[in-house]
Amino acid sequence: MTASASAPPHPLAPLTEAEFAIARDAILKSHGPSEPLFFRSLHRQEPTKAELVPFLELEHAGKLTDETPRPPRLAVVEYDVIKKESSDYSQAIIDLATSTVLSKAVVPRVAPSESYMTVGEFIQFQDNCVADSMFQDAMTEFVLPEGFEVMIDPWPYGSPDPGTTPPRLMQGLVFAHDTSKKNADANHYSYPIPIIPVMDWKTKKLVRIDRLPTGGKGDPMEPAPRGDKPKVLFEQSQSADYIPELLSIPQRTDLKPLNVVQPEGASFTIQDDGLINWQKWRFRLANTPREGAVLYDICYDNRPIAYRLSFSEMTVPYGDARNPFHRKQAFDFGDGGMGRAANSLELGCDCLGAIHYVDSLLVEPDGSLNRLKSTVCLHEQDNGILWKHTNFRTDRAAVARNREFVVQFIATLANYEYVFAYKFDLAGGISIETRATGIVSVVGIDYGKTSEYGNVVSPGVLAQNHQHIFAVRLDPAIDSYSNETTQVVVEENRPHKMNPETNPYGNFYDLVREPVEKATWIDLDPRVNRSIKIENSQKKNAISGKNVAYKFVNPPTQMLLADPNSRVSLRAPFAQHNIWVTGYRDGELWAAGEFTNQSQHETGGVGDMVKRGDWFGEKPADGASADGQKSSPVVWGVFGLTHNPRVEDWPVMPVEIHQLHLRPADFFTANPALDVPGTRNESSVLVACCNGKNGPA
Amino acid sequence: MTASASAPPHPLAPLTEAEFAIARDAILKSHGPSEPLFFRSLHRQEPTKAELVPFLELEHAGKLTDETPRPPRLAVVEYDVIKKESSDYSQAIIDLATSTVLSKAVVPRVAPSESYMTVGEFIQFQDNCVADSMFQDAMTEFVLPEGFEVMIDPWPYGSPDPGTTPPRLMQGLVFAHDTSKKNADANHYSYPIPIIPVMDWKTKKLVRIDRLPTGGKGDPMEPAPRGDKPKVLFEQSQSADYIPELLSIPQRTDLKPLNVVQPEGASFTIQDDGLINWQKWRFRLANTPREGAVLYDICYDNRPIAYRLSFSEMTVPYGDARNPFHRKQAFDFGDGGMGRAANSLELGCDCLGAIHYVDSLLVEPDGSLNRLKSTVCLHEQDNGILWKHTNFRTDRAAVARNREFVVQFIATLANYEYVFAYKFDLAGGISIETRATGIVSVVGIDYGKTSEYGNVVSPGVLAQNHQHIFAVRLDPAIDSYSNETTQVVVEENRPHKMNPETNPYGNFYDLVREPVEKATWIDLDPRVNRSIKIENSQKKNAISGKNVAYKFVNPPTQMLLADPNSRVSLRAPFAQHNIWVTGYRDGELWAAGEFTNQSQHETGGVGDMVKRGDWFGEKPADGASADGQKSSPVVWGVFGLTHNPRVEDWPVMPVEIHQLHLRPADFFTANPALDVPGTRNESSVLVACCNGKNGPA
Repeated sequence: MTASASAPPHPLAPLTEAEFAIARDAILKSHGPSEPLFFRSLHRQEPTKAELVPFLELEHAGKLTDETPRPPRLAVVEYDVIKKESSDYSQAIIDLATSTVLSKAVVPRVAPSESYMTVGEFIQFQDNCVADSMFQDAMTEFVLPEGFEVMIDPWPYGSPDPGTTPPRLMQGLVFAHDTSKKNADANHYSYPIPIIPVMDWKTKKLVRIDRLPTGGKGDPMEPAPRGDKPKVLFEQSQSADYIPELLSIPQRTDLKPLNVVQPEGASFTIQDDGLINWQKWRFRLANTPREGAVLYDICYDNRPIAYRLSFSEMTVPYGDARNPFHRKQAFDFGDGGMGRAANSLELGCDCLGAIHYVDSLLVEPDGSLNRLKSTVCLHEQDNGILWKHTNFRTDRAAVARNREFVVQFIATLANYEYVFAYKFDLAGGISIETRATGIVSVVGIDYGKTSEYGNVVSPGVLAQNHQHIFAVRLDPAIDSYSNETTQVVVEENRPHKMNPETNPYGNFYDLVREPVEKATWIDLDPRVNRSIKIENSQKKNAISGKNVAYKFVNPPTQMLLADPNSRVSLRAPFAQHNIWVTGYRDGELWAAGEFTNQSQHETGGVGDMVKRGDWFGEKPADGASADGQKSSPVVWGVFGLTHNPRVEDWPVMPVEIHQLHLRPADFFTANPALDVPGTRNESSVLVACCNGKNGPA
Repeated sequence: MTASASAPPHPLAPLTEAEFAIARDAILKSHGPSEPLFFRSLHRQEPTKAELVPFLELEHAGKLTDETPRPPRLAVVEYDVIKKESSDYSQAIIDLATSTVLSKAVVPRVAPSESYMTVGEFIQFQDNCVADSMFQDAMTEFVLPEGFEVMIDPWPYGSPDPGTTPPRLMQGLVFAHDTSKKNADANHYSYPIPIIPVMDWKTKKLVRIDRLPTGGKGDPMEPAPRGDKPKVLFEQSQSADYIPELLSIPQRTDLKPLNVVQPEGASFTIQDDGLINWQKWRFRLANTPREGAVLYDICYDNRPIAYRLSFSEMTVPYGDARNPFHRKQAFDFGDGGMGRAANSLELGCDCLGAIHYVDSLLVEPDGSLNRLKSTVCLHEQDNGILWKHTNFRTDRAAVARNREFVVQFIATLANYEYVFAYKFDLAGGISIETRATGIVSVVGIDYGKTSEYGNVVSPGVLAQNHQHIFAVRLDPAIDSYSNETTQVVVEENRPHKMNPETNPYGNFYDLVREPVEKATWIDLDPRVNRSIKIENSQKKNAISGKNVAYKFVNPPTQMLLADPNSRVSLRAPFAQHNIWVTGYRDGELWAAGEFTNQSQHETGGVGDMVKRGDWFGEKPADGASADGQKSSPVVWGVFGLTHNPRVEDWPVMPVEIHQLHLRPADFFTANPALDVPGTRNESSVLVACCNGKNGPA
């Protein structure tokens, strides 16, 4: 690269603090002091692909200069204009070079109900509830033990009832915190109080209190009638603490330290504009408030593989049939935002070894900058053997270890935690990993009862059955940034009937290939080994003669179980199929659409994208719709878990891990990790038998 | 334990060298010098379950004394009695306390054809071939480049033609080794010679040379007729070296050391009788020649979970329709034996950290002891985050790391490598892992052609499509050693139609449970989230009221593709279904039956076990067969990969990883890893941005 130090930032570089201030100030100025604002989000606007691709092509050809045309640096600001009656959710685009507001508009559909929740709102919610007389009245039904105080977890309201268009609402799951422990981290989740307050954000007053059913199998689906006398809660409940000083069991003392030591430092580098190099990989990292860490322009040996890779959405619907639990359906990206909910990671806790941390810039409600420290960690790890061969004639072994480079971030959504990671390996592969952990969402159940809706994980505590369904978005660039060359192919292995001509012994099987010609969904089927290849139709592997390609290996997990006509399903078409292939359009990044909070059905998600009928290559004969256009494919991988909670998931659940793999398939002309040295690790040591003594146990 | 140091070895302890000698000498003596023997195997005979269980119950109750009745220590010796005309494969049982041969018999079905191959035979095979005039004649068809010498990989013969009962045969895949490189480890696999010699082990003479087809798509399935002139081989071939000094590309120099350092040593102990303790886990390890590392009596906190856990079998059928490639079907356990093929592992190469190595005792053809060093490695590793929760109100994070204890062994079967591991975690889980690596099996293809039978991975080299299908065997003991209490339940999650009574909002779904009442197979189906729980029907979880259980989570991979009437399929019913549940019988350890080499169909494998009709609990009304009996369930997990080779798999393939998980499901009354300290790792260090300098790239 020949760009000078005074060159403008790379188009994919995260916003600087100075740019953040430019955007914020431009918006404040454009509204003036008479229009107070509530800031929700301030982040870099993605360049259009048409503008960015020529730049990337020059960059990788080493031909960038200060004069190279660049996509404009833009920021997007999302905010409410606070008005007496309601607040209008607005979006604005700011040109950072000129501090100009290029566009600014109230988003009509969204105002006022469907904008996402912010941390600022979370914090207001409990106070608003507790101060509300409707809540205070509802609480007179219950008697809490001495020292127990109400603690409310804010939740998205889920889908309104069909045919209604309520204002922007928030519901709360109510628990009690045992203050007698004199520890703010005493766990409240084992003390559920069976009411759900519903608040109107416009008035900040409660509009309703839902009393909750607490019965078991065979009981009515409605809550029991309110009794004459207050109900004493938690008589048989148990605490569910997980922090060491409150544990009722001693901590293990026999787990000896295991250190990852890198005496020569890390093998990766990161620049302050987000450019990362590790081994032959090169890509750019930026945080977005909604997605957390997003990777751009992923190349191996200067050959592009992906234009953009991200976690796009997740929905968590609960399977309890009783009103109002059908409204427990979170869209954690669209309703909240993983970047906004990201943890500040700590050295020696969230990864081991030599670690670099990246901060996130978030906006506070008043527009001030919140530099959230260390939200993404970068580090290397060892993952066992990468390849090995022993020549049995000479007994000589050659072995290379599977070093991985990990980009990890962790988000807390009230009770749940998600650990997200992109893992790069030495053989050209990328694994995209989710780990679900944290505290399962629970409600009250009468002591001694069991439920078809979930599992009793502690006395009086029902962990409801639910699903977590994730969507990963890959905008591929297989050995080219050109939209024209990318082709998705569905491959299957199918039995081939034994016959004298083509399969005389019955051992042959078919490899069936079918290119994806237009936007569609694909369901995996391990029985026929159905999988997806993303190919460059114009570049052949010099050895095999096949298209250079990457395989997209998505775990074939169960999809959404809710009835197809349910609100849960209508809001989340993405969660109904394992893979979606859609036509690229700038700005279409969301599997369930941009606005999920309080949605009644998906708008602008992968379902709508497929209905639009974009096609790839030749226009298909069977009617692409009028909205369709020739496009390049974007691939969405959907996977997750049907989580029928175990008692072992309480009070904090061990991780449940899923991985989606991108693997080269005739992209290279040999194993790309053949040049990894099989160096003997000199720090490994022998452990003797029998604590160093001989003799029987 | 109160047993004294002079107590006899634990019934599950591996044979000692002294015991090995007793068994060998007893057999030699019983045959006398007039009957020369060819030893194939000498290992500990498994105690019967009826004898061992009472002992284990006393042991875990802390009530063992020197007087406790013990199962007799027995050894089994497998050997041929070498005769002029043929060799009879025999099995004998030796009582080690008395040096008595308890039984000794020729195995009629097996003699002489179906006994497994030994390393000793591998080594003889090439010399026998090369010395044979039939082979020399066949080789006159070819001209090898100067300095190329024949190198033959022995292979099981696969299935004989239907209706024939040939003698014990071996086939060979023929390659050429480039001696001009003056390196014994120069890779021969990129130089295939298109003939397969077939040798009779009785005469040690070739019975046939199969000439191989080398055509591509559209070419005849038969080999081209032999030309008038010798064919010059390898004119456009390329070397395929993988050892550093022969690589044509430089090795990476920028992968900095990553050391696993355990300053206080390992957290596990191992006794010389194979007893291992790590955290709350306790189990016994022994090697068998056929299975490699086997785990016995796996307990957590002194509660049993498994009586025996092992890798049982794998079959690798190739999908090339052309004669004689249908005979490329290896059963790597039954035809060869993973323990016999185990690698001697080396410190700092096959695992990192503080490592204990366990040796294997194997028998040489003459009966001498071969102490194969370091065939199993034991070590701990870090696998990221195990659980985490951040209280968003206080920002306090609690996090525990996912320490694992790994029992690993690696086997080389000619070209291929398999890395097998049992991984124990801190939350009561066990992951059973396979990694496939090594060199894919290849044959010749005319330059420039492509094939529907595989992929060209190097000029003139066709890597044929194939499958690897593994079987893991679990003899469970869920919180009891009693045969009466174990129950396998199939669980599914199924949609529940929206209806006003039971699912008014459509978000509810069913959890359907069906106990397995008699021996059967089960196919996984991720669409209904079908999975298996192994439960103790007599013990309830104190919190949930459900049966204490472990989930058996098997990856839902594609099963055998061969036509159901093909030899490939008839020999491997086990490979046709994801899970088998069979009735326990002593000694039934093999998914495809005891004798697989040259088999025409499975005998005594899981297919036969299911046909027998054992039942669990009440005798089912619908006719268990006359052979059936009331029994306890043994669970077999089958999984693997359909491997359509990539160019990236050449010359040594990056690992392809599969894991089967055993996870507690209401076995414990809370997350068993809650007591894992969230200690901050003090050796982690920060990596600065920009190589420590600020400024753009």
